[in-house]
Amino acid sequence: MADPALFSVLVEVRLREGIADPQGATIERALPALGLTGVTGVRAGKSFRFDIAAADDADALAQATVVADRLLANPVIEESSVTVHPAGGSA
Amino acid sequence: MADPALFSVLVEVRLREGIADPQGATIERALPALGLTGVTGVRAGKSFRFDIAAADDADALAQATVVADRLLANPVIEESSVTVHPAGGSA
Repeated sequence: MADPALFSVLVEVRLREGIADPQGATIERALPALGLTGVTGVRAGKSFRFDIAAADDADALAQATVVADRLLANPVIEESSVTVHPAGGSA
Repeated sequence: MADPALFSVLVEVRLREGIADPQGATIERALPALGLTGVTGVRAGKSFRFDIAAADDADALAQATVVADRLLANPVIEESSVTVHPAGGSA
């Protein structure tokens, strides 16, 4: 196995379609008071960034997906997307 | 002015560097129990997706930046990044 390298991970966790999003609805109702009337469909979610030591891209993605599915997202109501870059790049 | 088109916006809100992140620290402490020991530097943030009606890309980005800076992020402790795509594409 190669020496592990460091990868930057971005996980975005979103509520699944059809799941009520009161935080997003509240934001949407607040926008006209700022003079913004063209905003629709606001959905609030979570984002997580971390570094992961892995042998290669595929290993980093596999480990990050475990983190996302088992710790960061509730798969009953949320879905997650995972992006992996070599550390030092931008995600 | 051209007819407004619909743009998909993704706003990521992160705590600024140096601001304590107890949620991220808690996640990091929980990971060894899942058998993941190579994860470091966990930072928790928020993500928001919405659609915005705007004349063009630049207008959509300008409006979305107002939403991010005035409503979604607390600029004292948070920074935000805004990504705009024509609606129908993937962000």
